Amino acid sequence: MINPWKVEGKIDYEKLIEQFGTEKLNYNFSNPHILIRRRFFFSSRDLSKAIENGFFIYTGRGPSGKMHIGHLPPFLLAKWFQDTYNVNVYIMISDDEKYVYSKDVNWSEIQKYADDNIKDILSLGFDPDKTFIFKSSEYIANVYQATLSIARKINFSTAKAVFGFKGDTNIGLIFYTALQIVPTFFEKKYPLIPAGIDQDPYWRIQRDIAESFGYFKASAIHGKFFPSLLGLDKKMSSSQPDSVIWLDENKKSLEKKINKAFSGGQPTVDLHRRLGGNPDIDVAYLLLYYLFEEDDSKIEKIREDYRSGKLLTGELKQYTIEKIWQFLEKHQQNKENLDLEKYYNGRLSKEMKEKYLKL
Amino acid sequence: MINPWKVEGKIDYEKLIEQFGTEKLNYNFSNPHILIRRRFFFSSRDLSKAIENGFFIYTGRGPSGKMHIGHLPPFLLAKWFQDTYNVNVYIMISDDEKYVYSKDVNWSEIQKYADDNIKDILSLGFDPDKTFIFKSSEYIANVYQATLSIARKINFSTAKAVFGFKGDTNIGLIFYTALQIVPTFFEKKYPLIPAGIDQDPYWRIQRDIAESFGYFKASAIHGKFFPSLLGLDKKMSSSQPDSVIWLDENKKSLEKKINKAFSGGQPTVDLHRRLGGNPDIDVAYLLLYYLFEEDDSKIEKIREDYRSGKLLTGELKQYTIEKIWQFLEKHQQNKENLDLEKYYNGRLSKEMKEKYLKL
Repeated sequence: MINPWKVEGKIDYEKLIEQFGTEKLNYNFSNPHILIRRRFFFSSRDLSKAIENGFFIYTGRGPSGKMHIGHLPPFLLAKWFQDTYNVNVYIMISDDEKYVYSKDVNWSEIQKYADDNIKDILSLGFDPDKTFIFKSSEYIANVYQATLSIARKINFSTAKAVFGFKGDTNIGLIFYTALQIVPTFFEKKYPLIPAGIDQDPYWRIQRDIAESFGYFKASAIHGKFFPSLLGLDKKMSSSQPDSVIWLDENKKSLEKKINKAFSGGQPTVDLHRRLGGNPDIDVAYLLLYYLFEEDDSKIEKIREDYRSGKLLTGELKQYTIEKIWQFLEKHQQNKENLDLEKYYNGRLSKEMKEKYLKL
Repeated sequence: MINPWKVEGKIDYEKLIEQFGTEKLNYNFSNPHILIRRRFFFSSRDLSKAIENGFFIYTGRGPSGKMHIGHLPPFLLAKWFQDTYNVNVYIMISDDEKYVYSKDVNWSEIQKYADDNIKDILSLGFDPDKTFIFKSSEYIANVYQATLSIARKINFSTAKAVFGFKGDTNIGLIFYTALQIVPTFFEKKYPLIPAGIDQDPYWRIQRDIAESFGYFKASAIHGKFFPSLLGLDKKMSSSQPDSVIWLDENKKSLEKKINKAFSGGQPTVDLHRRLGGNPDIDVAYLLLYYLFEEDDSKIEKIREDYRSGKLLTGELKQYTIEKIWQFLEKHQQNKENLDLEKYYNGRLSKEMKEKYLKL
């Protein structure tokens, strides 16, 4: 079961491509990002159209908690597109969505996370003049007319069919459907959206109505879910702290978590030397493969050595800890030194604060 | 059939009190407004509680066209409460509601009407320091968190049951339910709402949730519908220009309309002198009765003379034209000379623009 609020069960990504009616990602980038090269991003819609005809990047985050490395892929890809194609990036922090999603959450807590998430995201190094990051609650006045224009084209039956809304769904969550679509109309170009495939229902609705406003259908590039530290049948999830690596994790707790992570190695060193390990179910290996070991020849050698039994589980884990810590340490320094003002006063941010989108 | 968007068929107001579960209006005001004295306002909820414990006034208008005299009662009453009890008045111009109500309406047209309606309403003479009139689209940033807090307590089934929403209702109109409730929380006092009884569904929902936010249940005072010039079985309706008297009507067209208005007189002068007229179905008489002849002894004499045949239809109509024209001429002058800035810079307006309501 997959929708924007729930991802459950073991995921067959090939089947999702069929089920969601998307395309297998096969665009021939000249120098693709590791997440594309290693097929973490596996599916897309209208990607070549967007790249060939001009696009901007839109992505976002629901600030329901601290960020972990499973949240990084859309932002890493957004930055890569910005660096590679010199495009604007719009990032919506949907504090409103997280607030209406549950009656139990507290507004000031969501704001605290939203502010912290914004720092984490900007610490990835976006261009201050080409990036607009905003909380939807703070930008609502600028997009309210546009949100209403979208909302009046979506009836309850459609929203219900696409998202599985029921009678007990609250009217705030129902309305949010329109709001998430708004930023796809920030420019008259293809909005290219790096996101988990669980967000796809929004883009299906957007694609039905975009042209009636004289705008472009959403193009998307869909990521998989980061494997849980506890095993591949789950995704990294904030509700299970043992399953995730937080962006503010210290080295000691990183070590502890990786050492406890689900492994494809054998129970004893002897057995491992004899039978070898299975990298395809080994969380440490997969973390290296998808994100933390960019060097193709190195990852190939690790894979082979692990399969043959030459590389032990402890050794693989130690290497993984070092690689992830390299990333986290730099990230935490960047966040510490982040100059938020530089972003709030950047060219695109200034432009957007003056702009009232009308559809 | 009565809901905020449709009032159809002949209306039995006694039955509405039962059906909506409200109370017959019987508060003992010391010097009631004519619309109360003559029972145009006929029903209420928690009125004495509000008056005895402290209240503010909230009312509003959906700016779907020019205003006519059928739109006046809630505003006249609001001003009367302000003058009599020295209370703040909040008036929401729900441009968003009118926009999502129909796919065919145009945003700039609604804005044009909204601006014109605001002038008409303020021309009734509200206190600039105790009145806040606002378009909901312009005030959304100040109330968005509150709107979400309300929205997440209303599920689709409830909204459907109360308003008769269906699968083809758009998600904008569904969400508006929450927005109309927001101003009832502008002060920690009873919100007293003069409005047509067709708006009651909103207040029923409000009354279910208000106390959970630590606020007061809505108190309401319900008006009847102004009779159409064409006869009592319809209400004055902008969609039938012959049925209404516009606030910008000139004297000539006022004369034409009243002279064509549905009459309770006899077909010939002779018959009328002999049989007398029926004031209870005579639109000219009812206009005088409900609003334009404040003097109780005069209206009583008109009634008797009309019933007896002493007062002819033409004479009654001429008197009605003069009384209404007195009102319209003054209103049009007030509007011409209106100083909007005085309202936008008034104490309450300034306060409200600085305020971000959180629930």
